[in-house]
Amino acid sequence: MIDVLRATVRTVPDFPTPGIQFRDITPILAKPELVRFAVKALVEPYRKVGVTKVLAVEARGFILGPMLAEALDAGFIPVRKSGKLPYTTIRETYALEYGNDTIEMHIDAVGDDDVVLIHDDLIATGGTAAATFRLAVFGGASVAGFAFLVELDALEGRLLLEEGVPVHSLVHF
Amino acid sequence: MIDVLRATVRTVPDFPTPGIQFRDITPILAKPELVRFAVKALVEPYRKVGVTKVLAVEARGFILGPMLAEALDAGFIPVRKSGKLPYTTIRETYALEYGNDTIEMHIDAVGDDDVVLIHDDLIATGGTAAATFRLAVFGGASVAGFAFLVELDALEGRLLLEEGVPVHSLVHF
Repeated sequence: MIDVLRATVRTVPDFPTPGIQFRDITPILAKPELVRFAVKALVEPYRKVGVTKVLAVEARGFILGPMLAEALDAGFIPVRKSGKLPYTTIRETYALEYGNDTIEMHIDAVGDDDVVLIHDDLIATGGTAAATFRLAVFGGASVAGFAFLVELDALEGRLLLEEGVPVHSLVHF
Repeated sequence: MIDVLRATVRTVPDFPTPGIQFRDITPILAKPELVRFAVKALVEPYRKVGVTKVLAVEARGFILGPMLAEALDAGFIPVRKSGKLPYTTIRETYALEYGNDTIEMHIDAVGDDDVVLIHDDLIATGGTAAATFRLAVFGGASVAGFAFLVELDALEGRLLLEEGVPVHSLVHF
């Protein structure tokens, strides 16, 4: 079934810039049986570790993040680009190829008693996931691990993530 | 339970601009039992009408949209801001208070056999929802209705939506 999931990802050449092979997950989302399988497989390693909140980054992390939260009976916490969240936030800046990006989380989103799972649809260079980890820790939570639908192995994004924290990806390119 | 849902929405004054009372749904998302209730209530009017796809607009529509799709055993179709979708798209432009905005959907996202439900977390002036309706119809689909978590009644957004198509909102302000 992982093979079907992988084969259903559509590769779009030269998006968003020439030379980039974009891995498009929308054909998976159109098939409810594949979404259901992906959600089950993503939470499987984290069923017994007491996850209380799932953190996911806009926009594509919002698609499966709340379903992972539901499957774990946990709350869902949106992590957003700068200026989108209405209430008081904490923020983290991380380096992009050119320049920086900033993500934010509401200040009351997690606390000392929370065990969080961090999700995004795809891990590339790992900058966003690493910044989300720092937000969670700054908020007082402990991090059970990371769950990605797709991992771009050649970019070695998981090397940027905290050593010793589990990282699970369903599909590798 | 609708009362609890409504009371859990946090009102943030003067966001994003002075004078706006922002209705923040993140406290609902943090409570799995409220999310589960909201999803059930949102799909309830559409259980028997053969919905094949749920369309939702980024970013906040992505949070519950896929859960509505799962509950209806339907596919999920992301509708995105201009330039975000990698494959060939169809697009619709709509008026904002100042200027315009454009949303897009993949050209193969819906077809003549599809019955779609359109979701967003909140309906304000209705411009985004009306543009999503036009995308669905242009793609050949028929529209079963609209499902919103929050409706800002004073803005009368539902008057902008196609007459005769059902509109259901769980919480009104």
